[in-house]
Amino acid sequence: MNVEVIAIGDELLIGQVTDTNSGWIARQLNLMGWELTGVTLVRDSREEIKRAIVEAFARVSVVLMTGGLGPTKDDITKSTLCELYGCALHRDEQVQAMNEARFAHKGFTMNALTRDQALVPDACTVIYNPVGTAPVMWFDRDGKVLVSMPGVPSEMQYAVTHEVLPRLRARFCDHTSVHHATCLVKGFTESALAIFLTDFENELPASVHLAYLPKPGVIRLRLTATGDDDAEVTAALNVQFDKLLALLGTHAFCHEDTTLAGALGKILQEKNLTVGTAESCTGGNIAHEITLVPGCSAYYKGSIVSYANEVKTLLLGVSPDTIARHGVVSRAVVEEMARGVQRALHVDCAIATSGIAGPDGATPGKPVGTLALAVACGEKLTSVMLTAGSQRERNIDRFTHSALLQMIDLLHP
Amino acid sequence: MNVEVIAIGDELLIGQVTDTNSGWIARQLNLMGWELTGVTLVRDSREEIKRAIVEAFARVSVVLMTGGLGPTKDDITKSTLCELYGCALHRDEQVQAMNEARFAHKGFTMNALTRDQALVPDACTVIYNPVGTAPVMWFDRDGKVLVSMPGVPSEMQYAVTHEVLPRLRARFCDHTSVHHATCLVKGFTESALAIFLTDFENELPASVHLAYLPKPGVIRLRLTATGDDDAEVTAALNVQFDKLLALLGTHAFCHEDTTLAGALGKILQEKNLTVGTAESCTGGNIAHEITLVPGCSAYYKGSIVSYANEVKTLLLGVSPDTIARHGVVSRAVVEEMARGVQRALHVDCAIATSGIAGPDGATPGKPVGTLALAVACGEKLTSVMLTAGSQRERNIDRFTHSALLQMIDLLHP
Repeated sequence: MNVEVIAIGDELLIGQVTDTNSGWIARQLNLMGWELTGVTLVRDSREEIKRAIVEAFARVSVVLMTGGLGPTKDDITKSTLCELYGCALHRDEQVQAMNEARFAHKGFTMNALTRDQALVPDACTVIYNPVGTAPVMWFDRDGKVLVSMPGVPSEMQYAVTHEVLPRLRARFCDHTSVHHATCLVKGFTESALAIFLTDFENELPASVHLAYLPKPGVIRLRLTATGDDDAEVTAALNVQFDKLLALLGTHAFCHEDTTLAGALGKILQEKNLTVGTAESCTGGNIAHEITLVPGCSAYYKGSIVSYANEVKTLLLGVSPDTIARHGVVSRAVVEEMARGVQRALHVDCAIATSGIAGPDGATPGKPVGTLALAVACGEKLTSVMLTAGSQRERNIDRFTHSALLQMIDLLHP
Repeated sequence: MNVEVIAIGDELLIGQVTDTNSGWIARQLNLMGWELTGVTLVRDSREEIKRAIVEAFARVSVVLMTGGLGPTKDDITKSTLCELYGCALHRDEQVQAMNEARFAHKGFTMNALTRDQALVPDACTVIYNPVGTAPVMWFDRDGKVLVSMPGVPSEMQYAVTHEVLPRLRARFCDHTSVHHATCLVKGFTESALAIFLTDFENELPASVHLAYLPKPGVIRLRLTATGDDDAEVTAALNVQFDKLLALLGTHAFCHEDTTLAGALGKILQEKNLTVGTAESCTGGNIAHEITLVPGCSAYYKGSIVSYANEVKTLLLGVSPDTIARHGVVSRAVVEEMARGVQRALHVDCAIATSGIAGPDGATPGKPVGTLALAVACGEKLTSVMLTAGSQRERNIDRFTHSALLQMIDLLHP
């Protein structure tokens, strides 16, 4: 089943807000075996919204619309929908009551604009929105379904997950069972991995397929099985996933879909180890990635962000002599930082970084993008010098991923 | 002048990669007074690319295309362009030479696919790409310009800034002078600010306009002046900007366009103060935001990310008794954390956070989204309890912005 997304909002087209909704919807559709075949971003303009809808319906039977429903501008989107479906607006009593209760609970007073969020086109089925004030509107005519949803990501996500996708599956009689199994792979480039898995892919039954989802330093492999019988689909998936994991051995360092920091967390929990970080150039970003993972307090104790050399000496016990002799971006310094954080935070494992994120700070032989990185677990300690690019934000990101991967390598070689 | 963007790539439509290019292009066009009036995301499909181009040219005279030019798939985009412009591909000797030099410099060998990046349609003007292997292709026919660029953000950004925008201005004889002045405003909601500035806006000359760019907790106000004479435009802008700043007084806490962390940095540098952070629930994200700002080492010394209570006690000197009596998410604890980080890192100012990012960790009276926050400068210290929402990642983000704003408030009341 093919779907298109239309994202509405002047703020998207001046670049003030980045549309992340269509990517999120793409992933959900992909997971249930449907395809997002096009995305259109339009301004808050009656003509442009109408044109985008008409053109999308010339190609697909399902259009998901996000945005254009805030209290200050919903008249444009809603009246455009009324025009398209030849109907008027009426006040939905249930939306009205829900919004009144919502405002009363927060101690706010409703003004005319917020009250009018309860106006809905006669031609639509209203899907109630328990997490916001703008209702979701479902139009179904001539075999084509249009769903208009708020642009606020949390509201849109709630509606898609709990209402829109189940209703779409039912509406289009899609009883297909779709299951996925994902693993994270290291030590291969994408093309080398594709060559390594040629036979495996050729031998896959028609109901199972393999997708490569590469990110810097790590490749996500996702097996998807589809069919009519849920038990058969699961069984077929398990057989192939076991075969894949056996082929990949330790290259498959995580057997589920998570971030690098999430994968590190699983390994640490399995081994009952704790970790701490000592960050200079990454400036807290490794700690941030680790703490994005719910439940990380089971293995993560904290970080010493030692941006100033003084802090490296004061809190991590790095010798000023080592800094003077080797430079602050050196294996010797990050090794002392790693040992220092193991001591200071009473942790089993440590990650330490010192580098030049840019744009300034380059020294002879150490250009912007240079990273010194050490990881330790108990007595074991390894360190490396790496190089990334020239852009500060991207370097911090890459340094962070290299550090997490290196820690995983030490624990799961 | 109206422009549309077409972003090409299967990876965009399965949600593996988020299209940030069109937002970036939108901001650049907006700054030079042009408008991005539409964005279309299409798959690596000959038919869909062609359809998107034809439809876009029915509406605008300039189409910027990103992506679809990697070594593994550029044949689709390039041959589609050949078909549209009725021409063939030829090998561009200069691109070939540049790519060979590039590969030799990195010690890589070129394979057939990378060698074919030098193939370009006869009908285009080649714009050489010094930061990547895929050339930029400029087509100009019947008064309509199409520019095809690589999808890698750094390569696209280089091409747009250094080549595409200057050439577009020249091509369409746009000699308009456009200047901007931006300030960051706190202490107003968007609507309250709009009411406060009604007279100012009404009295603006026709050549100057005001834009509201709100983010949680802070509103960017941008004045834009346009005209034919550069000196007059600058003068008109300065007069209005001075008037605006005088009206806003201390509400305008930063007189240039930067992030919250960047604004804090400017204030600290003006006052010759240093800062350190003690982070629990924000897990290093405040440190990360601060260190995204180039040159932050002038005022930022580091952070103690005390995720475990043990670390709060060990490194920040928080009394276990205070934790037992008030709970770890309390004003008493963050006040001790702030004092602790001032001592431990020898800094003038301190930011301390302790809260419940979720999804777990709620206690009676302290739901997910609760934040205890303290900021200190020398002897001065203030603390507050705040509440955000229920989603972990968003809470960490909101906590971080609240903390930076609170620190700014203390320094710049």
